[in-house]
Amino acid sequence: MRRVASLLPIFDWAPRYTRTDAVDDSVAAAIVTIMLVPQSLAYAMLAGLPPQAGLYASILPLVAYALFGSSRTLAVGPVAVVSLMTAAALAAVAPQGSPAYAAAAIALALLSGAVLLAMAALRLGFLANMLSHPVISGFISASGLLIAAGQAKHLLGIRAGGETLPQILQELWTGLGDTNAATLAVGLSTLAFLFWARRSLKPLLRRSGCAPRVADLAAKAGPLVAIGASILAVLVLDLGARGVRLVGPIPAGSPPFAIPVFDPGLWLDLLPAATLIALVGFVESVSVGQTLAARRRLRIVPNQELVGLGASNVAAALSGGFPVTGGFARSIVNFEAGAATPLAGALTAILILVATMFLTPLFRLLPQAVLAATIVVAVLALVDFAAVRRVYAYSKSDFAAMAATIVLVLMVGIEAGIVGGVALSLILFLWRTGTPHVAIVGQVPGTEHFRNVERHAVLTSPDLLSIRIDESLYFANSRVLEERVLAEVAVRPELRNVVLMCSAVNLIDASGLESLEAIAERLASAGIGFHLSEVKGPVMDALRRSDFLAHFRGRIFLSQYEAAAALAPAAHRDA
Amino acid sequence: MRRVASLLPIFDWAPRYTRTDAVDDSVAAAIVTIMLVPQSLAYAMLAGLPPQAGLYASILPLVAYALFGSSRTLAVGPVAVVSLMTAAALAAVAPQGSPAYAAAAIALALLSGAVLLAMAALRLGFLANMLSHPVISGFISASGLLIAAGQAKHLLGIRAGGETLPQILQELWTGLGDTNAATLAVGLSTLAFLFWARRSLKPLLRRSGCAPRVADLAAKAGPLVAIGASILAVLVLDLGARGVRLVGPIPAGSPPFAIPVFDPGLWLDLLPAATLIALVGFVESVSVGQTLAARRRLRIVPNQELVGLGASNVAAALSGGFPVTGGFARSIVNFEAGAATPLAGALTAILILVATMFLTPLFRLLPQAVLAATIVVAVLALVDFAAVRRVYAYSKSDFAAMAATIVLVLMVGIEAGIVGGVALSLILFLWRTGTPHVAIVGQVPGTEHFRNVERHAVLTSPDLLSIRIDESLYFANSRVLEERVLAEVAVRPELRNVVLMCSAVNLIDASGLESLEAIAERLASAGIGFHLSEVKGPVMDALRRSDFLAHFRGRIFLSQYEAAAALAPAAHRDA
Repeated sequence: MRRVASLLPIFDWAPRYTRTDAVDDSVAAAIVTIMLVPQSLAYAMLAGLPPQAGLYASILPLVAYALFGSSRTLAVGPVAVVSLMTAAALAAVAPQGSPAYAAAAIALALLSGAVLLAMAALRLGFLANMLSHPVISGFISASGLLIAAGQAKHLLGIRAGGETLPQILQELWTGLGDTNAATLAVGLSTLAFLFWARRSLKPLLRRSGCAPRVADLAAKAGPLVAIGASILAVLVLDLGARGVRLVGPIPAGSPPFAIPVFDPGLWLDLLPAATLIALVGFVESVSVGQTLAARRRLRIVPNQELVGLGASNVAAALSGGFPVTGGFARSIVNFEAGAATPLAGALTAILILVATMFLTPLFRLLPQAVLAATIVVAVLALVDFAAVRRVYAYSKSDFAAMAATIVLVLMVGIEAGIVGGVALSLILFLWRTGTPHVAIVGQVPGTEHFRNVERHAVLTSPDLLSIRIDESLYFANSRVLEERVLAEVAVRPELRNVVLMCSAVNLIDASGLESLEAIAERLASAGIGFHLSEVKGPVMDALRRSDFLAHFRGRIFLSQYEAAAALAPAAHRDA
Repeated sequence: MRRVASLLPIFDWAPRYTRTDAVDDSVAAAIVTIMLVPQSLAYAMLAGLPPQAGLYASILPLVAYALFGSSRTLAVGPVAVVSLMTAAALAAVAPQGSPAYAAAAIALALLSGAVLLAMAALRLGFLANMLSHPVISGFISASGLLIAAGQAKHLLGIRAGGETLPQILQELWTGLGDTNAATLAVGLSTLAFLFWARRSLKPLLRRSGCAPRVADLAAKAGPLVAIGASILAVLVLDLGARGVRLVGPIPAGSPPFAIPVFDPGLWLDLLPAATLIALVGFVESVSVGQTLAARRRLRIVPNQELVGLGASNVAAALSGGFPVTGGFARSIVNFEAGAATPLAGALTAILILVATMFLTPLFRLLPQAVLAATIVVAVLALVDFAAVRRVYAYSKSDFAAMAATIVLVLMVGIEAGIVGGVALSLILFLWRTGTPHVAIVGQVPGTEHFRNVERHAVLTSPDLLSIRIDESLYFANSRVLEERVLAEVAVRPELRNVVLMCSAVNLIDASGLESLEAIAERLASAGIGFHLSEVKGPVMDALRRSDFLAHFRGRIFLSQYEAAAALAPAAHRDA
């Protein structure tokens, strides 16, 4: 039973479900549905899929997450960045609009789900840690800019392509002459309304005496109001005849249940993209989930999140959807609307199912420019230039990884951005830890402490060299330590003993061990003793497993003070 | 002048060149030449090139290295692993034996040289540190096995292909029936003679009263003796008519001087392989160079090595060769033969030039099986199973990277092996530092020291939590620290203050900083104070550059003892 409960978090909260919880969950579900319907249509368009695919991706996946996810308030579904990654992955295997394209979307969701479940089985949740905060932040900001630029064609009512920022800008420039005035009017007025609703509507309603919750709900309903108003405008002004492109007929009814076609060739082609989508989606989800859980002093379980998101994506694949993950904006809305348990997600799914079955005929007359405006307003909120400035001030190497991510996303593509950013942050980390701070230390008079000779007035002895390395000894820096020690020895003719102070050494890998052996051997051949001090417990345990200690002719001192007292008693006796 | 001297190490040693140096260098050059002529022919065959290419690659590159390299005793030229990598890279762009294949070999040498020089200009020598010792060791052992297996066809006198071990073994199995008895006899007897010469000849000569130097020289000359004897056997027994494949005519004369053809398409195809060859060659060279330099208390300069090897490869490209690097065996021979300065390399080049101009007609009758036997004996000396056992005993994660490298080299290919091994060792390093050792600490009674509460009897206080993380705070572990601190806080209702002891924190990157901010914020919202202690100088300098300290409401204590005294005086007053 405990095992089942740990796999199905529902057993954790369902037995204690109260009437108050039910009210809270229902209200939250209604609010999230109002937000999710336009978003689902918009992100399906962003992914290059028919609008109903977005609705389908917002039904069964929510139920799956409610069953298997560990966050109580995370709202899954199509999100901007993952939809853009989906479009990029599918464009490589099938032409947009073809049946093969829709089938590939389903395969991509299935593969993402499989990758997430495999990561859960192998407990690989830690892989998400390879994405540093600056890389994620740069990736999301740049993706937001790229998505917004890509929507401009819908706002202008022109046909244009392009996957990178320069391509998009060039195509927009070329097509500018074909701008459709009616489309531009619809697009710009929606954009203006949505920005106003997001910024000014809520304070305005509050000032006019509106209850906070109602004001909040009204502001959240902005996109839905825009959709209603624009459909009305299309009807009254016959905008379709004036060249405003509309969403067109959407099949009504519940999502189709379909077993994805077994196609190993296609799956192999899509696997790299599916893996990246799984990883990015997981990181986005965990960041959101962790932030929200902490506010109520709850915790999420990363490996359980992998199960929840994996199940959601498999559910998306089985019901005609495309890859989904936990979205930032909608999860915050769910949280602030008072969602108490994952049941809020399941209720949202039911409400969206109702909308899918009965309201889709209305969306036929919806202008694409309105959806584009919805996307632009949503993604520009993701762009965070302040973070770039902050990272630049703190760390040039973090900034370099962030800048590379941004430039690659905009100039080459989102996959190149995330892969390049991760690779560069790894290389820079290796470079920083590969050129560690090494200090010659001496005794602070009157204490047992040893400090850097360059920063403090300390006692040293010409026949003893005490050297401290402020880093673990591992492959990236083992050669550096060898070189540094030998260089210091070369300029000290009176030297008889070297002590390596290991207080900051948290790990010695096989390369580091070989370097220690090489240093010991070279010093021995020069008639100089080589010793260690302040070796940590776990590091000492590891050394005992090797044959290092069998060959090691030096001593291992508990403290640098003991080492100095034993090896250079004259200089340190009076200290 | 100093700048020129630093770029051309010749200004360092030439002014002090003595008569003794000249004798030493000449003797070393003669010995290395005896070793290098058969090796050059053999490695050209391994790279799929005509034999003279190997000789050409052993002339001008040696002169270039003598001018620009920083090691006094490194001997550059074709080496086994790089020759195999060359064959793999060229097979992908042109059929073996075609003019395009030879042209691609020249382009590959040029590109490797360009990559090395670019790395020198960008001071990227540290990139070689990404190759950990276990990965290099596994790579070289597995390459040795793969090369030896690949030579079996020449020993059997059959035609067989295959690039991976299973392919090679399967082709050998299929072709076994076509074995040429005469070839097998020549091959096996050469193999037996070479193994005997390597193992037993020198001790035997010493016992029979031979001078050490002569005994050594005789043992080194084994391959040359085998070549002479086999040519004689071919002449006397007319082995060519019995189906023994011979090297065939080699054009005599000095190396052709040729500007490589500008072919951007080909260069782009070859660039990834050229980069890997440059990196592997550099690592091999630096390892050898460093070992030898240390024995004479000299040092090599990694960035200068990049210049030397880059110049050597460009020289190889200009004179009809293929990629070269510093070889282990020949450098040791050069060192032990007493080479005093890089002039030994230049003299070797002159001797090989003489051989190329006048001795090549002799090699026409040389059986390919003899060259194959030379290769097998040389590469099997590289296979080091003891290292695998040693690494397994010391570190399972280093062993995993090593095993992955070996399996990938044998089963998929040498490039997959090196790339996969490096990737896995990086991921495993991130995993190890991403799940760091975190200890709750308390005061050792009667001292100012704080130790792990689980290992020592220490003083703690219910309203103060002192926690020590034994790792730098960076992107791979920032989330872990957050989770751990919040989990510890969740089980301590009386808690009023948390102190993070940073004595083992060598670096805090932007992700780590965000985590600290998140922890501070969450603890503040729970009414708990958050403080730091024992923050190192460089880390504190970095924090001062950020706006962290402006928001940070806690205190930063110089020592954990001060923190405890200030925050939980009652518990620690009597200690």
